[in-house]
This record gives sequence, C-alpha cells and structure tokens, in this order.
Amino acid sequence: MNQFFIEPSAVAEGKITITGEDVNHIVNVLRMRKGESLSLVESVSGLTYFADIESMDQDGVVCVIQDVQSESRELPVKVTIYQGMPKSDKLEFVIQKSVEMGAARIVPVAMKRSVVKLDQSKTAKKCARWNSIAESAASQSKRGVIPEVTEPMSLKEAIKDAESCDAILLPYELAEGIDETRKILTEIRDSGTDSIAVFIGPEGGFDESEVKEITDAGGRIITLGNRILRTETAPIAILAWLTYLFEK
Amino acid sequence: MNQFFIEPSAVAEGKITITGEDVNHIVNVLRMRKGESLSLVESVSGLTYFADIESMDQDGVVCVIQDVQSESRELPVKVTIYQGMPKSDKLEFVIQKSVEMGAARIVPVAMKRSVVKLDQSKTAKKCARWNSIAESAASQSKRGVIPEVTEPMSLKEAIKDAESCDAILLPYELAEGIDETRKILTEIRDSGTDSIAVFIGPEGGFDESEVKEITDAGGRIITLGNRILRTETAPIAILAWLTYLFEK
Repeated sequence: MNQFFIEPSAVAEGKITITGEDVNHIVNVLRMRKGESLSLVESVSGLTYFADIESMDQDGVVCVIQDVQSESRELPVKVTIYQGMPKSDKLEFVIQKSVEMGAARIVPVAMKRSVVKLDQSKTAKKCARWNSIAESAASQSKRGVIPEVTEPMSLKEAIKDAESCDAILLPYELAEGIDETRKILTEIRDSGTDSIAVFIGPEGGFDESEVKEITDAGGRIITLGNRILRTETAPIAILAWLTYLFEK
Repeated sequence: MNQFFIEPSAVAEGKITITGEDVNHIVNVLRMRKGESLSLVESVSGLTYFADIESMDQDGVVCVIQDVQSESRELPVKVTIYQGMPKSDKLEFVIQKSVEMGAARIVPVAMKRSVVKLDQSKTAKKCARWNSIAESAASQSKRGVIPEVTEPMSLKEAIKDAESCDAILLPYELAEGIDETRKILTEIRDSGTDSIAVFIGPEGGFDESEVKEITDAGGRIITLGNRILRTETAPIAILAWLTYLFEK
C-alpha cells in the first residue's frame, strides 16, 4: 500500500485531507481512483491511518479513515547521531542508513579532521536535500516519524546540544575493550535512559582534543568490536546494537 | 603503515619475500626504500608481521621480520552470509560492508524474487571482481583473513552448504518478536557455536516456499527489529548483533 506522511492538521472528523505535492503524485503519477486505499502516517504522533479515497481534485485528496494502527515502529530510545562531517556522498549514506536503522535525529558536525569544509552559502540547500533523503528513507522503512537532519554544527555547539540527552557515547579506537562496553551499554539501558547522543569521528578519526571535550561533557568511550569500521559504517553498527538492547 | 597480504609460503627463516603484483605497488607506486617498514598479514593464520625492507628489485621485495602480532581481529564465530542476489551494485556493497563487519564468507544465492539473473558466461569474471572487493575491504579494516566470495549458488546448493554450520539464521518479517530472537541468539552463543549461516532475502524478500526450505533444514527465524531493513542493510545489522554477542 502506498504510504504518505501527513501533518496532524490534515486529520479532522474521521477524514484526512491530503494537500501539497503528494496530491499530484496520487492523482497524476499513481493515477489512483476513488475507493482505493492509502496508508497515511501522521508525522508527529507516528500513528498510521488506513484510509480510502472519497474524492479528489488537483487541490486535495479527501480520504475516509477506516482503521488506525498505533503500533509503533520507533526505537524506544531516541538516538541522535552526531556525525563528524565526511565527504558528501558518505553523509547522504549515513542519513539514509541511520534513518532506516531507527535514529531520531542526525547532526552533521564540523570536526578538526573533516576533509569537507561546508560553504555557508550552500548550507540551506544542502540541508533541504539531506532532509528529503531522510523523508524517503523513513517512508521506505515504514517509520512513523521523519527524523530531522539539522544544519551542521561546530563541535562546541554539538556538545551543548547533546547535553540534553540522558547519555553520550563515543565509539573510539582507544576504548577499553568490549566487556567494558557491554557493561556501559547495559547500565545505560537499565537506568531507564530514553535519549542517547552518539558522536562519530570523520574519515580521519577524532582529534585527541575532541575526545577530551566530549568526555569532559560526560561522553563515555566505547568500542564497536575489534575491526576498524569506516566512518559511515559506525552509525549503523551502534544503531544495530541499541536496537538489540532497547527494542521491545 | 602500509599493509599487504602474504601467503604462508612467503615466510621463511625470519624473512618474508613479497612477490606478484604487490612488488610493483611497493617499488613503483609507493616508491618505498630499504629500511622502511611494512605490515604483512599471513592470510591463513591471520598473524601480522611487522617487517623492514632489506632488498628489492622488480621480482621481489625481501623483508626482515621485526615483530609478530598474534592478536586477532577476527570475530570468534565464523559467519557466512548467504545473500539473496540483489542488483549488482548492492551485492558489491554487501561484500564490502560484510567483510568490514567481520563475515568469514559470502555466498550469493539465486532466489525466486532475485531481479538479477546471472549470465553463466560472466560468472568467473564477476566472482574475481567480488573477491578483489573483499580483499581491499579486509585490508582497510585491518583484518587478518580475506573472506572468500563464492560463485553464486542455487538455494538448494546454499542450504546444503550451510548445513555444515552449527546454526542457521533467517531474518524474516514474520518472526515472533525480539524477545524470542534474543532468546534464540543467546542460546546459540551459550551453546558454544563457532559457525553461523545467515540467509538474507533479496530486494523482494523471500518466497514463502524458500522460508520453508530453510526452516526445514534447521533455519531459525529471527527479527532484526521493528523497522523494515533493505536487503543490503540486513547483513550489516546481523553482523553487528553477532559482534555484540560473540566478540571477546
């Protein structure tokens, strides 16, 4: 069934009115007809509505709600990936895969060893592109929420941002070994944590001074195993681990 | 330090003789000189030798062993990924990432819903390319062993091949929920398993008859969480879980 995201305001009195770009897609691309069914995800609550098309024109598609599914596909812990800015295609990959694996939010971070320096004048355009990648990945993996990709932050800004999370993790090659990592992660889970910040180094890794800044802010160093992972693989691995530990 | 793979026969009496294509790379591309150090991984044992160049010409580079590191970067369980044939670029991605995440072996499997039908006459050439992707991924993640990518198998052949493993896993959307999956995985770990086969469906998923064939052969159905993963993301996720569970 085709799935679209809707705003909370689209839902009223047992009906849902789809407006904007999706109308053209439903009417002219998919050529859907009255009576056909759609799956409509309300992007704030994550509720999924199953609804049949009642009427349609170029301005809007009105659907009648048949069923609501409240079963959430969301990870029970909100994970923000603070990704040390890698090359452009890798960042897009990180966004796509992190969304697929359940991340709540992605923050590109300018780090000392980041090769790409972002041109300030292009930031808004890039950021719009990143968010559209997040939206289509969310839709493809049938998630009920579209994770936000923020504009790039400096490390200082990112750390300040991360301090609102219950825990901060830092996968780093000089970690103490996997037993200690397992201890840290289960401790975080068992303490009822509901938000986690994860800092990922760029291609060249963290600068030591950056590791210090993050640990000074409460970041805990962990290992992701005995093999060296690329910067774009590390967020997938940690999201998989957090899924294993937190999913219900 | 530059790393190369060597055969066991290259090691003799405290010295290592590098031959073949790597010689040109060391002499003419890297322009290394006498006295410089290399990291040489013996591809069967996984031992890493640190050695200094003693002499070199176009036929070979002779190095004197300075140190041997036996610390293994290998996952303590041998995981074979039986990947339902996806589109060509996705298979290359699966090979690269599975090697990075610690897979021991990758077997492309022709499944009912595989879109790509492999042209028999091109198999050998493709397979050589896949193995070279595996080699460079192994080198980049500093692994001591180069995982083999086999020629594509039919599902029947793949199941027969997988029966030599201690356990067979099957991530499938109709699994019973993550608690049951966690039970299955910890049970497998605690029973001293040292080899696991994982079957991954292609883009269109498994056909029901294929699921039956694999479970009839002892395959156990698991979930990878509440979100729908793409075929090329699933092997990374399960390898991450097995790393979390088995790594020492």
